[in-house]
Order: sequence, then structure tokens, then C-alpha cells
Amino acid sequence: MTVDERAAMGRALELARDGWGRVHPNPLVGAVVLRDGELVGEGAHLEFGGPHAEVTALAEAGEAARGATCVVTLEPCAHHGKTPPCVEALANAGVSRVVYAADDPAEGAGGAERLRSLGVAVQGGLLGEEARSLNAPFFARGRSRPWVAVKVATSLDGYLADPTGRSQWISGPEARAYVHWLRAGFDAIAVGRGTVAADDPRLTVRGTVEPRIPPRRVVLSRSGNVPEAATVVRTAGEIPTTVVCDPARADATRARLDTPGLDVLAADGLLGALRGLGDRGVGSMLVEGGAELANALLDADLVDRVYWITAPRWLGAGTAAFRRPAGSLDTPAGWRFVERRALGDDTLLVIERGECSPES
Amino acid sequence: MTVDERAAMGRALELARDGWGRVHPNPLVGAVVLRDGELVGEGAHLEFGGPHAEVTALAEAGEAARGATCVVTLEPCAHHGKTPPCVEALANAGVSRVVYAADDPAEGAGGAERLRSLGVAVQGGLLGEEARSLNAPFFARGRSRPWVAVKVATSLDGYLADPTGRSQWISGPEARAYVHWLRAGFDAIAVGRGTVAADDPRLTVRGTVEPRIPPRRVVLSRSGNVPEAATVVRTAGEIPTTVVCDPARADATRARLDTPGLDVLAADGLLGALRGLGDRGVGSMLVEGGAELANALLDADLVDRVYWITAPRWLGAGTAAFRRPAGSLDTPAGWRFVERRALGDDTLLVIERGECSPES
Repeated sequence: MTVDERAAMGRALELARDGWGRVHPNPLVGAVVLRDGELVGEGAHLEFGGPHAEVTALAEAGEAARGATCVVTLEPCAHHGKTPPCVEALANAGVSRVVYAADDPAEGAGGAERLRSLGVAVQGGLLGEEARSLNAPFFARGRSRPWVAVKVATSLDGYLADPTGRSQWISGPEARAYVHWLRAGFDAIAVGRGTVAADDPRLTVRGTVEPRIPPRRVVLSRSGNVPEAATVVRTAGEIPTTVVCDPARADATRARLDTPGLDVLAADGLLGALRGLGDRGVGSMLVEGGAELANALLDADLVDRVYWITAPRWLGAGTAAFRRPAGSLDTPAGWRFVERRALGDDTLLVIERGECSPES
Repeated sequence: MTVDERAAMGRALELARDGWGRVHPNPLVGAVVLRDGELVGEGAHLEFGGPHAEVTALAEAGEAARGATCVVTLEPCAHHGKTPPCVEALANAGVSRVVYAADDPAEGAGGAERLRSLGVAVQGGLLGEEARSLNAPFFARGRSRPWVAVKVATSLDGYLADPTGRSQWISGPEARAYVHWLRAGFDAIAVGRGTVAADDPRLTVRGTVEPRIPPRRVVLSRSGNVPEAATVVRTAGEIPTTVVCDPARADATRARLDTPGLDVLAADGLLGALRGLGDRGVGSMLVEGGAELANALLDADLVDRVYWITAPRWLGAGTAAFRRPAGSLDTPAGWRFVERRALGDDTLLVIERGECSPES
């Protein structure tokens, strides 16, 4: 079976995911070496500080790389960072053509130009949208707030808890495993105070991927009234927890929750909270509930992506996941689906804002 | 590229869809001839009364069929119907093995046994669930009511109309084209009286597939108060329309809507209505609205499948598509996803009842 460059890029995007949770704040990158329609080398950036995808793929291809095409999800880097520049590795291996998906917006930019100057043919933009979506937080850098995703699991009719308030097992084991995988790739996992009080979640990563840096736990609570006995407070010494509250409540909250690993961030409003978290190095944050927090973020236009897991059941009543202000069909849709797939018996729909202003 | 039998069956299922709208009440069937991992023949049952899928695939394979495997979505027929039995065609072509997906529940059953008696190796059940799902109305025959599907198009938050009542352009052109394709494969398209009054739909098939028999239009209206000026009434001479109403209202409705092609069916309740339609030859029915009718059918456990199109927008208020009785997480989910895919910018989710009692 021979593959074309588009299929090869699809494979490279697949490989890139293998670095999930292990390379950020670096981007996920995958690469393949394509020779006469055959994949002769594959690689991914798997560990922060480890070899880049191109280098691994070239090593696997060996002599077959000479005259071949390297298909890579991100513009190859031209700078000396933790590893030597990939553009030189590509040229030295004798690759005659490089096809990449997304331009590198970061310090390494200029790779395409440098490759051309080394005599390598270069084409960018193949499946660029998919590649940017894969590394959305990376491409959103430079904004004043973290890239924010909301995860919600609902019934077919949009309830995230039944009338008795239970929500924990609305989705199946594959969906729950997926959520642990998802968490591993974020800098922070956030919930509102109500969710801590109701469910006392651990908000840790307990799946197949062990994150290089366990995501910080964040509790957004204007009042700061997070129970001292909450798991995320008690275990802050193991995995840091940040409680974000109103400035007027910060001192009292700090005094009450005086625990190693726990810090209290004083912030005005949701945007203030996000900016404060961004200042502390949170580049991406997954919001897991509750509905009040998720909808407040949506209403403030502060959500970049929604991971919506739907279970094949009806609930008829309970806690509605989405409570948006009344709109009309006159306004543009504003969002777009970027993924639709099965998670066991459940369905995952991933939705992104159509565009996102840099500052909101 | 070589394919295994499972991939070949996937291809056969794809081919089977080409008969959509043209062969029912016969089932959709696709077949391929597989020789040393290569597809040497393909066919589908494309026209009612026309050649069966196996025969077309064998003809394309020619001499290559000798010693090859025929992969077909339905147990090959053993009877002389409108065409000679496929089992003989398979044996005569020298096929050494037949792999099929679903047992034939109908008059043609016994094909597998007959093939074995002719010296052909036979294996059934490969992707059987997919094949039965493809022909769900066919496999539901023998019940006292038609196989019922509900189509609904909503916003992300489950509204099928905005607060001003508009619903027509909630989904995009690909979704609308899909609905026309979908209609072509049903015996009847049904709506409630409210939808006729509000939208005055034509309920005709205006897509890429011209149905062999245009689906009957059905208006479910206890009162029978369907406007005489409604398009489905005025054009009943071109495509038959049935108005289903309470027995007490039948005579008055007949007198008022005395139009060629329009008939009035007196029935008690929803199950009575469905049974009456079944008696008139409606084996499958697509319900397109409104929410009241769809939910009444769901609540009465009379829906076999839901085609749910979601547009990537929020409405926040309007007409909620799903208004189910309050349930709890203690009860089994009861439904399952059978398809999830893009329709342009929208998403199609197809949901089926987990099981369906023969009489409900």
C-alpha cells in the first residue's frame, strides 16, 4: 500500500499524539519519511528535551532518507535549543523535500527559509488546521490568559446530573479513561467551589499517560470558602492547588487554608482569574465543572474548546449542562466541530470557537 | 493494497447503500469478490427487480471468481423470485467460499445451507450488526407497526427552533441534502398537525436519489384539523397524503378534505395510528416533527431510531427538542449510538433503542 503526502501527514499527526502529556509546553510533533509512496521512517517528539520527531524519523529511515520527502506536522526548527536544529539534520540526511503542516509561531521560526537556503524544496500548510488544532494551546501563546477547555459529560438531552444530583457515572469507562488521558496534557485542571463541596474530586491524572508535570489543581471560588477537609486542599503538598478568590477574601482564605503547596490567588472576575493563572505559568486549563462555572466562562467568551461527552441515555430532568443566553438564528453559529468519535458506548464531540480574539 | 474479509465486508456495506430509495421493500445488499486479498468484482442491488449484488459482482469478476471468496452483506437467496437464486450463481461461478453478514429472515432463507450442499464453504455473521442496522426496517418486519425513525435538527443546547419559532435553517446545506437522501428510503414521512400549520412543508424528496416510490406523506392529527390549503393536502393527487385522526373526527375530516390522493385513517392513539399505517403498507416511517409528536412517540416507546443533527451554535432558548420524563442514572441507558459523523459543519448522531419488543 502506497500513501500520498496527505495520508503521510495524517500518520504524522497520529504519531504526534504520542507525546501528549510529556512534552508541553513544547508542541506535539510527528514526522514521517516518505520515499516512493512508502513510509521508511517514523518519529514523534516524545519527551521534553528529547529528540525531535524529524530526527527520530530520519534515524529510522537511514540511507533511505536520501532523496526522500520528510512530512512533519510543524515547520522544522532552525535554532539551537535543547537539541541541534532539525533543518540541518534534514539537509545532512539528504532529504530533498519537506512538507509541513503548521508554521512555527515561536522562537524556532524561519525553518522553512533556512531549508530552502540549504537546497531543500519546502511546502507548508498541508493539514495545517488539524496541526494547529492539535497544539491549540501552543498556538494561543502570547495571549494574556491561558487557553481554556471545558469538559462536560451529559445525557442525550443535555443533563449532566440526574434529579438526585448524581453525575459520576453518567458516561462509561472508556470516556472516563479518556478524561484521564485528556488531563495529562493540561497545565491545570479547574473546578468551581460547588463541585469541590459536592464531589470532593481528586482532580489527579490516573490513566495510561503519566504527565511530565502533574497539572495544577485550581478551585475558582469568589468567597474562598473551600472546605479545609477537601481532598484538593489536604493533598496540595503532593500536587499544587491554587484557590482563586476575590481580593477582599484573599487574606482570610490564606489564613484558613494554610497548607504546603496551596496558594491563594486574589483576582477580580473570571478574566482576572485567568490572567493571574497565566502569570503563574498556566498556559492551558481544563475546566471540569460545575455547570455554573462552565456557563459563566462560556458567557464571558473565555472558552476556546468544549469536550462534550454524550451518553446514550435520556434523563429528562436534573442539572442542565448548557444554560446560555437566548440567541437567534440571525447570528452566525460561532463554533465549529473539530472532532466527532466514539468513546466506548458514548460519543465525544469537540467544539471550538470559530475565531478567538487575542485578548478575550 | 490487499484487504481482509472484514475490510471487504466494509466495502460491501458501502456498496449496499447505493440501492437506497430504489429497492425497498427489498433489503439493501452489497457484495464483493475477493481473490488473494484483491477485490476482483463489486456489486450492489440497485433496482427493485434488478440483478442481485452477488450476480453483478460475479459478472465483474468473470473467471477470477473461480476459487475466490464472495463477501456479501446478506445471506444469499436460495429461491426463484424475480431473479434466479444467487446460491446457484455462486456455485456455478466456482466460488469456493461465501462470507455473509446477516442471516436472511425472509422467504429467501436457507441460502447458507443450500450453498454448503453445493460444496461451498460458508461463514455468516461478519459485521452482522452493521448489516442489520443498515436494513433495520427489513429486519423489523412482522411487527404490527412500521419501523419508526425520528429526525431532529438542534442547536448544541438542544433547541430545534429559536425563541421566535424559526427552525428552517438551523442546520446547513449538507444536512438538508442528507435529509432528502434519507427521505428517499422511507415508505412514509410524518409530521404533526402543528408542523403543517406552522411550516406548511412539502415533505417531498428533492435530493440526489429519486425514490422508486415517493414516500407517502402522513399528518398525525387527533382533531383532523389540517388546513385545506396545506401543501400536503393540495398536492395529494401527485403524492398520496394520509391524515390520521381520532375515529370520532374521521367522517368530518373526510368530508372537509375531500381531495384525490388524500385518505383519512381513523385510529385510536399513536400505536393505533402506526398499526393502521402498517396495514396500508407503510413498513418504515420517518417522523420529522414537531417536538410534541416526536416526544410522544419516544415516551410511548414507539421510536426505533433517532437521526439527530446538531449545528455548532447555541440558542439558549426556544423550542427544546427533547422533553423526556424524569429518569435516573439507576436505569440502564437503553439506547446506543450507531453512527457519528460530519454533515458539513453539522454533526449527525444516529441513536437506536438497545432492544425493541416486537409489539411495542
